[in-house]
Amino acid sequence: MFPLIKELLAAEGDSRPVVVRGWVKTRRDMKNLVFVEVADGSCLPGIQCAFDGLSLPDSLGTGASVEIRGKLVRSPAPGQNVEVAAESAAVLGAAPSEDGPEGKAYPLQKKRHSLEFLRELPHLRGRTNTLGAVMRVRGVLSQAVHGFFRERGYVYLHTPVITGNDAEGAGAMFRVAAGEGDFFGREAFLTVSGQLEAETYAAALSRVYTFGPTFRAENSNTARHLAEFWMIEPETAFFRLEDNMDLAEDFLKSLCRAVLKECPDDIAFFDERYEKGLAAMLEAAASSRFKRVTYTDAVAELAKAGEGTFEYRPEWGSDLQSEHEKYLTETAGGPVIVTDYPREIKAFYMKQNGDGKTVRAMDVLVPRLGEIIGGSEREDNLEALTRRMDELGINGESYRWYLDLRRYGSVPHAGFGMGFERLVQYVTGMANIRDVIPYPRAAGRLY
Amino acid sequence: MFPLIKELLAAEGDSRPVVVRGWVKTRRDMKNLVFVEVADGSCLPGIQCAFDGLSLPDSLGTGASVEIRGKLVRSPAPGQNVEVAAESAAVLGAAPSEDGPEGKAYPLQKKRHSLEFLRELPHLRGRTNTLGAVMRVRGVLSQAVHGFFRERGYVYLHTPVITGNDAEGAGAMFRVAAGEGDFFGREAFLTVSGQLEAETYAAALSRVYTFGPTFRAENSNTARHLAEFWMIEPETAFFRLEDNMDLAEDFLKSLCRAVLKECPDDIAFFDERYEKGLAAMLEAAASSRFKRVTYTDAVAELAKAGEGTFEYRPEWGSDLQSEHEKYLTETAGGPVIVTDYPREIKAFYMKQNGDGKTVRAMDVLVPRLGEIIGGSEREDNLEALTRRMDELGINGESYRWYLDLRRYGSVPHAGFGMGFERLVQYVTGMANIRDVIPYPRAAGRLY
Repeated sequence: MFPLIKELLAAEGDSRPVVVRGWVKTRRDMKNLVFVEVADGSCLPGIQCAFDGLSLPDSLGTGASVEIRGKLVRSPAPGQNVEVAAESAAVLGAAPSEDGPEGKAYPLQKKRHSLEFLRELPHLRGRTNTLGAVMRVRGVLSQAVHGFFRERGYVYLHTPVITGNDAEGAGAMFRVAAGEGDFFGREAFLTVSGQLEAETYAAALSRVYTFGPTFRAENSNTARHLAEFWMIEPETAFFRLEDNMDLAEDFLKSLCRAVLKECPDDIAFFDERYEKGLAAMLEAAASSRFKRVTYTDAVAELAKAGEGTFEYRPEWGSDLQSEHEKYLTETAGGPVIVTDYPREIKAFYMKQNGDGKTVRAMDVLVPRLGEIIGGSEREDNLEALTRRMDELGINGESYRWYLDLRRYGSVPHAGFGMGFERLVQYVTGMANIRDVIPYPRAAGRLY
Repeated sequence: MFPLIKELLAAEGDSRPVVVRGWVKTRRDMKNLVFVEVADGSCLPGIQCAFDGLSLPDSLGTGASVEIRGKLVRSPAPGQNVEVAAESAAVLGAAPSEDGPEGKAYPLQKKRHSLEFLRELPHLRGRTNTLGAVMRVRGVLSQAVHGFFRERGYVYLHTPVITGNDAEGAGAMFRVAAGEGDFFGREAFLTVSGQLEAETYAAALSRVYTFGPTFRAENSNTARHLAEFWMIEPETAFFRLEDNMDLAEDFLKSLCRAVLKECPDDIAFFDERYEKGLAAMLEAAASSRFKRVTYTDAVAELAKAGEGTFEYRPEWGSDLQSEHEKYLTETAGGPVIVTDYPREIKAFYMKQNGDGKTVRAMDVLVPRLGEIIGGSEREDNLEALTRRMDELGINGESYRWYLDLRRYGSVPHAGFGMGFERLVQYVTGMANIRDVIPYPRAAGRLY
């Protein structure tokens, strides 16, 4: 395959003949010299192509696609090792700079646009520095997720997207239908989590993880919510809560290391433009031990904070608010793992502690965002699980298959879920979740 | 993390203390000796644990989960290098061998079950040799897909699952809804392909690929169709049809090599039980050049076959039937790439040839299954594309964003789609597509 611009930029300027394929970022015309910066999205910087004494067509302007032939030479300019001594240029597709009979002018000519403006152009915004960097980081993180679990003997599992489970309060669900009547012979929904099905395969293959889309039909139009988002859910047989915490901590750290190593230019860009100190924050997270605290101790710590620190008073038995999560991570100076939450605010399948009040749950909180991972040891005792389901009025018949895991060769096991877009926000510093997914879906929005 | 059984089996029998965690496959009681084979799903074989002069509870039987402590020693038995000289065993969860007051007997006690029977137990069938092997191979293939594209500078892209595109005849679609009225402000569907959105990002990042779920609401209850399946769709800027063919061929070959290398036991198992000659077939596919033929030449070749060879007469202008595809691959003795199909039987976005009759399409056909990959060079000329859309009565207004790619910096580009379950069938020899995905979805089926 022909080389990408990131490969050309990393090569020696030894006068080898090269072909540059990409889109024009800038063009600067000087006396006998034209400088054209060409990018192909493989990395943040473009490559500079210098045309000495050659005339170029007007159509070779910002946004036009080009094929430029020349020689790769050492660059006299600062900030780049090589440039192209260009010999010819072909414009493959223009990007009109003004409205004309053929249509409107190319909307991304100016160098900077607001993120709000770019959200209206999801099909073009990947060509900007910011969204290009987000999508490269997103791709590297995805790959790193698979690499992390592969090294540890986990099998990647595709749990179903269309489901008959009604998810017992995990959130509002989308209904799926086709033609008249029920295509599947019963009501069908879009999944809110692959966990329960992942548990069935952890009880067969020992270590599995999912990485797939999940859905919430919540009518909240905020910078924190999407109707469609991706989740990673490892599930491990013979794991206790402590093992699960270790795995979650290793996981988040290894992802921080991956982007620092593979996307240094992109991270430096986000650090400069969006979140000062981002790179140092990621390096600290990757190398220091996460603080671990029980929910009960965390609430006590929050209660000690001065009058007026919080809008909502921290109270044992209530879910932690965003402001509480932020306080905990800020005082810790990094990620915090909170464990052993009250059972009343957690799901029916979490393993119950002996105190009759708390469950073996764990949330990983990070600065700026709060919860990024939620998990637990699962209740593997049939009697304890059915009793809890009865208390909550959950119909055991529709969970017969799930209870079978406790009837036949039940094992201690644990798992967690990480919202992938939250992770991308964490490592890029992007404030709005709609800016870290190619085509965001939310109430009233379906670009 | 504690070692998996595949790691124990690969270690030296040097009397090191080990803990085996897994599920009992078989138990054989002899005079003073009990042999227990324990599997954890990390590989096809279990590990043998020998209990010398120790008495074991009755509950330690097929399907029970156990934790066995002992020493890893060299095995005197044929077919295994090591075994465990067991010192203690704890049953974590029984798997009753008979119906009792607590519930039904464990349904997977017998060694062999029909695939039909197992389809009724999707939550347990991963514990069988066959489904365990399928899911391990599926996991290795998934990882190999990501590895292949990573090495070539492709960015993994999550295209949306919920879409407003009505897919122009790519198949019947599922509708998505929540609450009363339109959640998204317009009709919403489950995607049938991520290609069009992938094209928008190929025009920004040059090389992208998707690997996500796609959907067809077709009411066909066959061994070949699923309502929900996974697809891989690379899209490459500056690619012509020939580059696309090379990529598809390299891709399929690298996947064959990956399973041969990483899952030799599982492939040998499928070869013996399901598809004689499977391993040799995969080796041949991995190492020989795929035959390439135009649709027109393929139809001429089919027309030369003797009277009575086909049910459907091969005819220029009609789609190739399964029997035709099989004939082509069998006479070639391996995969065949057919190109330049009549435009009337292909999608509107394919690049038109100068003959006014054919398009730059390519299908990769494999023995047994027929089409496993379908792709094309895309029409990058705005005028040619809108003319074709007009001919087909496709509303240009709803594709305005897609046409924008031809208005602003248009580039030649090409891509293809591979049905992931087809691929798993190809490398495992499994005949029914419902046996290669954890939870198959089809009309009337939603386990």
